[in-house]
Amino acid sequence: MKFGLFHSVQLTDPSQQQQYYQDALDQVLWAEQLGYESVWMTEHHFTRHGIISASLAVLAYLAGVTRTIRLATAVTVLPFHNPIQLAEQAATVDLLSNGRLDLGVGRGYQWGEFHRLNLSMAEADRRFQESMQVLTQAWTTTVPFDHQGEFWTFHDMTVHPRPVQVPHPPVWVAASSPKSMDRLVQHHWNLLIGQGLSAKQVGEQVAYFRQANEKATGAYDPSRVKVARAMYTAPTAEQARQDAEAPFLWFKKTADEVSAPPERRLDLLPANFETYRRRFATEPTFDYQEMTDQVILFGSPEQVAERVENLRQSGVESLILFVNFGGIDSQKVKDSLALFATDVMPQFKD
Amino acid sequence: MKFGLFHSVQLTDPSQQQQYYQDALDQVLWAEQLGYESVWMTEHHFTRHGIISASLAVLAYLAGVTRTIRLATAVTVLPFHNPIQLAEQAATVDLLSNGRLDLGVGRGYQWGEFHRLNLSMAEADRRFQESMQVLTQAWTTTVPFDHQGEFWTFHDMTVHPRPVQVPHPPVWVAASSPKSMDRLVQHHWNLLIGQGLSAKQVGEQVAYFRQANEKATGAYDPSRVKVARAMYTAPTAEQARQDAEAPFLWFKKTADEVSAPPERRLDLLPANFETYRRRFATEPTFDYQEMTDQVILFGSPEQVAERVENLRQSGVESLILFVNFGGIDSQKVKDSLALFATDVMPQFKD
Repeated sequence: MKFGLFHSVQLTDPSQQQQYYQDALDQVLWAEQLGYESVWMTEHHFTRHGIISASLAVLAYLAGVTRTIRLATAVTVLPFHNPIQLAEQAATVDLLSNGRLDLGVGRGYQWGEFHRLNLSMAEADRRFQESMQVLTQAWTTTVPFDHQGEFWTFHDMTVHPRPVQVPHPPVWVAASSPKSMDRLVQHHWNLLIGQGLSAKQVGEQVAYFRQANEKATGAYDPSRVKVARAMYTAPTAEQARQDAEAPFLWFKKTADEVSAPPERRLDLLPANFETYRRRFATEPTFDYQEMTDQVILFGSPEQVAERVENLRQSGVESLILFVNFGGIDSQKVKDSLALFATDVMPQFKD
Repeated sequence: MKFGLFHSVQLTDPSQQQQYYQDALDQVLWAEQLGYESVWMTEHHFTRHGIISASLAVLAYLAGVTRTIRLATAVTVLPFHNPIQLAEQAATVDLLSNGRLDLGVGRGYQWGEFHRLNLSMAEADRRFQESMQVLTQAWTTTVPFDHQGEFWTFHDMTVHPRPVQVPHPPVWVAASSPKSMDRLVQHHWNLLIGQGLSAKQVGEQVAYFRQANEKATGAYDPSRVKVARAMYTAPTAEQARQDAEAPFLWFKKTADEVSAPPERRLDLLPANFETYRRRFATEPTFDYQEMTDQVILFGSPEQVAERVENLRQSGVESLILFVNFGGIDSQKVKDSLALFATDVMPQFKD
């Protein structure tokens, strides 16, 4: 199996943005040293739930300070980008990293982001389709092309620089419905599975994607599926819970808020992290045990390995681990990454 | 005086884009070692005249591999960017570089870029003004803001991350008319002077800008003006001409083409650099001696120092040197940068 990071920066304490960035980048360098094979950066805007808004700029930075780890977005929200500029930025990162870019793309799910940018969520899927068409053409054309679509018009278009990978960086798409997965197969896109699904649901999606690929092409490569999972491991289950529960609940709470429709949004997050932490400590919104059983990889190395094995049995060969949540102490994250690398990874060597 | 790089990547040989990027980035690391204080990256699109299209991504990369050199754009073409995304990208580079970003901005001058992006050049100035308003507000506001302009609408807007520099990264604008320079003074923007003007013209602009600042604020700091100049130095004038003339003419020729109105554009550049070089060798379009006398800093260190002194006498305290043109051999560029650092710079120490 392969293991990477599904990486994000959240702003639990509003005064510490630079420290949180530094911690997250430091974790990537550490992960590379430990043998993790990729880092997948989220793109979020306008809230403390995620403050990496220019994910390709962050990957460009990482291109300079890393050597082997693959650099990926998960996901670039296509409706927010001019597809030509995105083609240029992605090709630039691919070039600067000597072909290490994977581009995860999505249509966006946060009402607040669309609203603030004055875009209609009802157009998200059509914008996604048009952007993928332009992006692919911009990366691969050998002659200038014209494009006249619903949202964008370009003339006599050629893009510099060109990506280093041929024909272009691998494209990854989050999909869950059969119809969406069929579209991935048709375009030779790869499958991202989000961190919210149970092992059973993951297994069903992988099985569908495998069958659809086999039906269309006669072949299937399990490395074309990546599954995101929150992970925290410590020597004991008790220690893991003590370290990770409150920060993860902060993440879950803000995730719930930003993905909520407008009538359920709580716009003003408390400015003081400690106040917020105490509020969660007395009003737990999520059942830690249930989440641990179903979804997240939290616990001792033995417990985590057992849940990774369940995913492997479901056909998962590649996991991206969400490790930096809710202001969790960065040294604890690094210790958890190291413990996973020494006590869990070796059991799943290819 | 201060000396930096006005930096660009051109695609003289279409098969060598990655090498040209590597050379240009290598020159920046070398310049930092030699004591150059800044690098100003151009933004160009769609032609071989300039293939850094995602200049902030390139600066993000440089943030990771440099320590002290200031990182700048010269210029970011505002009409081509969503101002909120630009605020996010610039703040990200400012954060990743620990406050080393300078943002040069312009309205664009290449008909071909506007045409290909389906934008009207007639709107360029109005787009520039609106973008600067949104950008400044996005960087500095402490409460969410709404914006309803001619080109952009945003609601309830807050941007993450925030720049590290307070109130925001220095803004630089290319301007030449009195009216444009008055606008700079009014907004506390700094002045960029392009590489095409004679020392006399430069002196007139600096004098006007100084007087306008003194009139408005009672003070003027000469470090608020940067002048771009092509530079190449070698032990003898003959060697300098032999090394630099043909590559610089390639640059001048493509610069002329891309800035020409549509009726004068030569869209198809010859694919073979050697053919092109020979063509210039037999049909020189520009007078090397005249350019050397008036504009470019080409020659022996003594000659270059004399022309730098002329600029200093005209009130110029900060030069950014355009050194990487027309496929010139990268080792020659590095040698020229070193010779300038040892034989010219010390004469202009503050």
